[in-house]
Amino acid sequence: MSVITVERKILEKNDEVANQNRRTFADHGLFVVNIVSSPGAGKTSLLERTIERLKGKVKLAVIEGDVQTDLDARRVARYGVPAVQIVTRGGCHLEAGLVREAVQNIDLSLLQVLIIENVGNLVCPANYDLGEAAKVVVASTTEGDDKPLKYPAMFRNASVIIINKIDLLPYIQADLATLRKNALSINPSLTVFETSCTTGAGIDEWCEWLAAGARRRS
Amino acid sequence: MSVITVERKILEKNDEVANQNRRTFADHGLFVVNIVSSPGAGKTSLLERTIERLKGKVKLAVIEGDVQTDLDARRVARYGVPAVQIVTRGGCHLEAGLVREAVQNIDLSLLQVLIIENVGNLVCPANYDLGEAAKVVVASTTEGDDKPLKYPAMFRNASVIIINKIDLLPYIQADLATLRKNALSINPSLTVFETSCTTGAGIDEWCEWLAAGARRRS
Repeated sequence: MSVITVERKILEKNDEVANQNRRTFADHGLFVVNIVSSPGAGKTSLLERTIERLKGKVKLAVIEGDVQTDLDARRVARYGVPAVQIVTRGGCHLEAGLVREAVQNIDLSLLQVLIIENVGNLVCPANYDLGEAAKVVVASTTEGDDKPLKYPAMFRNASVIIINKIDLLPYIQADLATLRKNALSINPSLTVFETSCTTGAGIDEWCEWLAAGARRRS
Repeated sequence: MSVITVERKILEKNDEVANQNRRTFADHGLFVVNIVSSPGAGKTSLLERTIERLKGKVKLAVIEGDVQTDLDARRVARYGVPAVQIVTRGGCHLEAGLVREAVQNIDLSLLQVLIIENVGNLVCPANYDLGEAAKVVVASTTEGDDKPLKYPAMFRNASVIIINKIDLLPYIQADLATLRKNALSINPSLTVFETSCTTGAGIDEWCEWLAAGARRRS
């Protein structure tokens, strides 16, 4: 596990660096996803369940983005996968340059999948391409079923929505069908997974999607 | 209910305008709070419960900040209080200038309390003073108990933390004592409320705090 602490200087245009990242990833036949969500939607728990399922089958590494602390990289590194922590020190999103710096700590030639966990923020990361193949937005049922309407850019720019914490549906007012409908009204081409990191529901389907992405590139 | 749609031009320094706002609020003996949280922590539900409790006792109005939609102002306006919606069109936080513009739609001389519901974002609104007397951070138990450590600026700059959705504690792994301890480790002077908008727990205590703030100023 490595820790990079960021002085917030944007030296190059993000999109240009993102395209360089994309070429680097393509050169290594690497499938890269950028996981975004509100704070506490369950990105890191999802990663833990994902690594448990895919370890030994798919070679993966993780980049963790956080405003502060390396708690998440520590959680992930426990599972024995390469993990790099980016600490933005107040920065509200990851940028392509930070990812480029982070991957210098990882031997990409050994990998099939790179998962980037973005800063918990449903607004700002929407518009920052990191060079990923797909943006994956995690929406917790506990946030309510109206969030795609209220934060449309994130759902518009994502390829996948993971509706997480479905085990809590009996105890809350949010409606799963409404949440799904609202997300698809913003972006009809979203691939939808419905998961619980507590019960394990839906995790296999999501992992199969990841593994299929890796297979297409190798 | 009024709707203001924002072109994102920052024409004046935020802090300067915030101080002007603060003087305006003081001139009217107005207690102003700025409610911040992640998306879906329950700010609007908390507002609904608050208005139910305080209506007829404390004269209040609401400014709603959202990236998109006027859903929240509609929810609040149903309770018969003045409500102004600011739509930031992608903007990730409210600024003092937007609040100054919004209050032009409200007769401040009729009010005791003004509640500003910020954009759902645990990062960016932390550093934007709106001229409020107190920043109130709402943390949902479902987000996990580590969020004060991971998003410290918001908890450091707040005067109050409302730990919401305590009714869901039996179904999740987050620990209430740990969440409280983590928040106080970042900011020992936080006033802590523990609430559920579903059961009504803790709402009276929070409303009494708001009403006391209004009494001190009138």
